[in-house]
Amino acid sequence: MSILELLEPPVRVNLSERSYPIWIGSGILDRFSELIGEGLDRVSHAFCLCDSSVRSPFGTLVMDSLQQGGIRVSSMEIPSGEGSKSPGQLVAIWDRMLEERCDRSSVVIAIGGGVVGDLAGFAAASYARGLRLIQVPTTLLSQVDSSVGGKTGINLPKAKNMVGAFWQPSVVAIDLQTLTTLPKREYVSGLAEVVKYGVIMDAPFFDWLELHAASIVNRSDKELAYLIRRSCECKAEVVIADERETTGRRAILNYGHTFAHAIEAATEYGQLLHGEAVSIGMTMAARLAVRLGRVSDAFLQRQTKLLEAMALPVRWDRNEPEELWKLMQSDKKVHHGTLNFILPSGFGKVESVPNVEAKDVLKTLQDCR
Amino acid sequence: MSILELLEPPVRVNLSERSYPIWIGSGILDRFSELIGEGLDRVSHAFCLCDSSVRSPFGTLVMDSLQQGGIRVSSMEIPSGEGSKSPGQLVAIWDRMLEERCDRSSVVIAIGGGVVGDLAGFAAASYARGLRLIQVPTTLLSQVDSSVGGKTGINLPKAKNMVGAFWQPSVVAIDLQTLTTLPKREYVSGLAEVVKYGVIMDAPFFDWLELHAASIVNRSDKELAYLIRRSCECKAEVVIADERETTGRRAILNYGHTFAHAIEAATEYGQLLHGEAVSIGMTMAARLAVRLGRVSDAFLQRQTKLLEAMALPVRWDRNEPEELWKLMQSDKKVHHGTLNFILPSGFGKVESVPNVEAKDVLKTLQDCR
Repeated sequence: MSILELLEPPVRVNLSERSYPIWIGSGILDRFSELIGEGLDRVSHAFCLCDSSVRSPFGTLVMDSLQQGGIRVSSMEIPSGEGSKSPGQLVAIWDRMLEERCDRSSVVIAIGGGVVGDLAGFAAASYARGLRLIQVPTTLLSQVDSSVGGKTGINLPKAKNMVGAFWQPSVVAIDLQTLTTLPKREYVSGLAEVVKYGVIMDAPFFDWLELHAASIVNRSDKELAYLIRRSCECKAEVVIADERETTGRRAILNYGHTFAHAIEAATEYGQLLHGEAVSIGMTMAARLAVRLGRVSDAFLQRQTKLLEAMALPVRWDRNEPEELWKLMQSDKKVHHGTLNFILPSGFGKVESVPNVEAKDVLKTLQDCR
Repeated sequence: MSILELLEPPVRVNLSERSYPIWIGSGILDRFSELIGEGLDRVSHAFCLCDSSVRSPFGTLVMDSLQQGGIRVSSMEIPSGEGSKSPGQLVAIWDRMLEERCDRSSVVIAIGGGVVGDLAGFAAASYARGLRLIQVPTTLLSQVDSSVGGKTGINLPKAKNMVGAFWQPSVVAIDLQTLTTLPKREYVSGLAEVVKYGVIMDAPFFDWLELHAASIVNRSDKELAYLIRRSCECKAEVVIADERETTGRRAILNYGHTFAHAIEAATEYGQLLHGEAVSIGMTMAARLAVRLGRVSDAFLQRQTKLLEAMALPVRWDRNEPEELWKLMQSDKKVHHGTLNFILPSGFGKVESVPNVEAKDVLKTLQDCR
């Protein structure tokens, strides 16, 4: 029986000629070449970039399946961690791609979390002015967020994600078995972006998350499959409405992120995982919304309770408010000094709020200590 | 009177939301900010990349005009020569762009020839996942070819133009006064691509070039304005039909280039200018077409005579045929070993011819010595 018949229909990201499926299932990497064989023409060579922590067993599963499917496979291991999203690593990948004779019939496959996905995505976008890309995200965070939507890139020494491309994948393949071995802290970190979708655009999903918080924390397969599918659907809806961040719609995904980026920058990306910073940032954003009279205190309490039920952090006292405020003003999305915040006006609904005053932000940061 | 009223209507490259005008005129850099003010929203900052050989006077003209127009200007000088199209130079530009606080309200302006245009184009495409780009080509070759069409990129140590992006400019501004100071050899080199348009798609233009060869070599303003306009129209027509090199149409622009790239690679890009190599390559392609019975010997003679009237080279004896043949097979556009040639079947008409045999290519190379 074909793997495609065994699986639920994929989530579709409809972007005209750049449309692609997101396949979600358990054990799909074992039959990877069948999965991609349907939609991709003339793949004669796969260049696999694997995070060093998942090369065994997941990278190996993918590469074995490709080889059995008659596809020439080359691979390169990428050291785990944000440090790999560097210009130096990118140039090393370009050189390796040339050595491995990548051409426009090749496909680049990213196997790992957000770091490998972003880096491989930009390498695919830029080599020979664009090769096809397949995302095989192996962390919850990358499955529900970074592997979908086409943002790729690397960091400059002083600015995260400052260089890159919008480059949509041809296929995203999410195998639930990758989550069984994911360290607890990393798994939980991914849940912050999931809660975010409930808050910014899907109140019933937020309710569902509250109801199933315990099973989710325990990684129940049934709940996970739905949670990932619904998160990908939410992300896809926003990306379809604003593929290249030009209409403003995509900005809602930044809920909590202006605060989170400041915290991450203040700690030099060393103390918190991204999702942990987002959880704190969402709490700060909700508290700011309460202060500005946009939501009730009950909203803040409910959001906080769910984040805490997921074992996510909601307080931050390791930096002075003034320090974080200063960092917020160097965010990439600032247009010549105007600082916007994405703030909720209720569950399932956020707005972009311009010209928020420093005193309100500073008081919020103080209250979240 | 507005500069836009003084000028001929621009050549339009119609690519839906990526459409742009190509302005052609004499003395337009002096009024540069008026020229771009019409079509570009909210430019508050210009990041100018200038080839070191044209910073004075052309870079200065552009920058003065922008400053008078109330736009903040930063600039960076790029050493002349192909060596600047390197990963190291690209990273240096990214770092500088960050220092200069480039953001999505900034526009990148490339002032120089193809090297600066390709490099600045890729920097614009990748910084913050894409800034607007204005091309100010100052060599004939870049005016009639590389500044139009959106191909940007850099070289890897062993592969030219191997990394980059398709990134269309928002405006191209071609000032004829830049040609008055261009060294003769560089000027003549640009004429090879002009002759190419006549051969591949516009027989009347080829006739016109024959008729005006002497004035063209003498850089008569009237002939130059028409020659550049018609070349840009030809290039635009092909780019519109095949923006990202997916339909095959764009391949006709590679007439003579498979040979030219091999010659350039054999000489490590050090002895010939690109247009010189293209002139020799076009002669080789025409001779190959004669050998394969696709055109008459008269076709070859007429093309050769025009190239020679432009003072372009048509012979190459510094490499063995076998050496060039080997290099041809590592071209970026080779799909797993199938080698195509773009060959004429008459003036104004070329075709992609697959599976040309080694013996015919080798004999052709021998005959062009």
